[in-house]
Amino acid sequence: MNRATIYLDHNATTAPAPEAVAAMLHALEVAWANPSSTHEPGQQARRLLADARDRVASFLGCQPAELVFTSGATEANHSAVLGALHAARGTRRERLVLSAVEHPGLLALAARLEGEGVPVTRLPVHADGRLDLDAARAAITPDVALVSVMGANNETGVLMPTAELAELAHAAGTRLHVDATQLAGKAALDFAASGADLMSLSAHKLHGPKGIGALVVRKGFALPPLLCGRQERKRRGGTENLPGIAGFAAACDRAAATRADDVARMAALRALLETGLAALPGVQIYGARAPRIANTSCLRFGMLDAELVLGRLERAGVVASSGAACSAGGTLPSHVLLAMGEPAEHARAALRFSLGRDSSEAELRHTVAVVHELIGPLLEPAAQAA
Amino acid sequence: MNRATIYLDHNATTAPAPEAVAAMLHALEVAWANPSSTHEPGQQARRLLADARDRVASFLGCQPAELVFTSGATEANHSAVLGALHAARGTRRERLVLSAVEHPGLLALAARLEGEGVPVTRLPVHADGRLDLDAARAAITPDVALVSVMGANNETGVLMPTAELAELAHAAGTRLHVDATQLAGKAALDFAASGADLMSLSAHKLHGPKGIGALVVRKGFALPPLLCGRQERKRRGGTENLPGIAGFAAACDRAAATRADDVARMAALRALLETGLAALPGVQIYGARAPRIANTSCLRFGMLDAELVLGRLERAGVVASSGAACSAGGTLPSHVLLAMGEPAEHARAALRFSLGRDSSEAELRHTVAVVHELIGPLLEPAAQAA
Repeated sequence: MNRATIYLDHNATTAPAPEAVAAMLHALEVAWANPSSTHEPGQQARRLLADARDRVASFLGCQPAELVFTSGATEANHSAVLGALHAARGTRRERLVLSAVEHPGLLALAARLEGEGVPVTRLPVHADGRLDLDAARAAITPDVALVSVMGANNETGVLMPTAELAELAHAAGTRLHVDATQLAGKAALDFAASGADLMSLSAHKLHGPKGIGALVVRKGFALPPLLCGRQERKRRGGTENLPGIAGFAAACDRAAATRADDVARMAALRALLETGLAALPGVQIYGARAPRIANTSCLRFGMLDAELVLGRLERAGVVASSGAACSAGGTLPSHVLLAMGEPAEHARAALRFSLGRDSSEAELRHTVAVVHELIGPLLEPAAQAA
Repeated sequence: MNRATIYLDHNATTAPAPEAVAAMLHALEVAWANPSSTHEPGQQARRLLADARDRVASFLGCQPAELVFTSGATEANHSAVLGALHAARGTRRERLVLSAVEHPGLLALAARLEGEGVPVTRLPVHADGRLDLDAARAAITPDVALVSVMGANNETGVLMPTAELAELAHAAGTRLHVDATQLAGKAALDFAASGADLMSLSAHKLHGPKGIGALVVRKGFALPPLLCGRQERKRRGGTENLPGIAGFAAACDRAAATRADDVARMAALRALLETGLAALPGVQIYGARAPRIANTSCLRFGMLDAELVLGRLERAGVVASSGAACSAGGTLPSHVLLAMGEPAEHARAALRFSLGRDSSEAELRHTVAVVHELIGPLLEPAAQAA
């Protein structure tokens, strides 16, 4: 990546921290044996694995034994949903409840399950992106096998009321799964206190490597595995990705060391960005009055097509995105904004700026200036049309 | 790992090649963006992904579009089996046929499916480890959804008759899945000519990184995904593990460059090892007369307990294993040797030496000498007992 690029797409992925890369190199070059091998090289790898597990667990506020390493959040989400439905087989609990603004991968899984006869309820959100808790109250009944929501929305940054959902789920005798991928590094994580029964994580959104993540499974919940095998206490088969796990642990250590400062700085820089952009006519910021993670700003410039805006910004060295990377390049408007009641032509205009802990004031000031210079002149007529 | 260690456990895992580590570092430091992002950093990552896909496909003898990157062979195997069963739903094809000597992870999956009502047939093997083709002929009938076998057994190295199985499967109108994990780097792989419909791979058995593998899906076979999402042509959701994929591709390039020589050298060194060890009384080599991959030697020293032998060898700097790493530390005798008709007390005595392309003549000569010195004196009475 060009060093001059101002990267404001941290919700898509983040640059691996130097500490994470160094930890991976160490595992690749020194501790490459199979942690399941009983010989000393294997046992050396096993000790590294145990140490990494302790550190990731400490970051997540869970017990080491509750932590199952996966290939990422998508696998963790599938493992949570399919495992919880599997565990409830033979009971009357067969319904899956999720929100309408979940990650496309989870929505695709839900659609497939629905096609196979699993009853699915998609909870609506309000115009500001907050979950409709009345709808949740009505839907979370004793026939529910699992409630699954993301901790914070990847497009708008709006937080889900996970504490309330945990209460509702437990009152109905069911379980709550939280995909905390977008929370990590942007909010304090405390699995023990969260009320969630399952929690998904991905390292690469936290300046860790791609290809590694975790599912936290509350002690006592015998979740059937998605991948059978003897690793991870028989909860996830396959030789452990030790370089990835070591990099994940280093990324957690690094994030823990500065998280509070990082969050405060990102919040201030986002305020700088949003204040600067809101001075233009026709700018609408989504979820601005809802509780949000500190780094995300989803907005539109009147009715200007998002691809047009992104193209101009990128030529000026500023990189952002329209919606999630996982649906980028598609022609469909964001399902998240549609669920918030926005018409398709507004949703097609929506952009996402997502800051990182290395984002600087100079970068954000430059971004505001670039938008004023290159997008501002296009805005008056577009704003009138809107 | 101590540099003086003679590592003869390459079927458990291999040291990442320097080329693979360098390719991972490049991806971690330069091409870390999300390949699904439409901006230039994302597109740069996307080009690297496409290039890696071409190279891995070339190594496997498949088309790039047939290649689905996974987190490893375990995920690929689960995806193959569950996907094929899923694809056959609503037809009369519901039976799963596999061999009795498959990987523990696959056997665990089969046991679970059987518990859920899926008919499962486990094909027996002969005393030398070769598959019983008569049993295969009888079992592969029009009610079969998938035949799944490993290309070479991880414990004995004995090859499966995949060409014959492909013929039987196709004559019955069904599909063949081959787990080629232990073939890669030890035999020529040519998916196009193999007759297999699905093929699993793992990079870390081929001097690539852990946490990455592949499932090859023959063109035209619409395999339902195990992980839903928009990546990999909607066949495997989740942000692509680009560092892992880049390392995998580099490992394939490296292996392709010297494979023929590597195989010839490993075969010669294994012959040196087996000839040297067979001079001791009571040594039995498993599968010695069956077609085997060139690097694997499974044997027992009379009735000597495998852990006792391994402990003595390791103190002398030679590292091998008893059976597969995936079941190491367990107290059960190898299911592979039991399936070959060995009594449990023989199976408990079995060791596996698995050579790598960097294994040297000096290492193997030293190993033979160490065994003669440390194990030889224990053998006479044990051999008599056997």
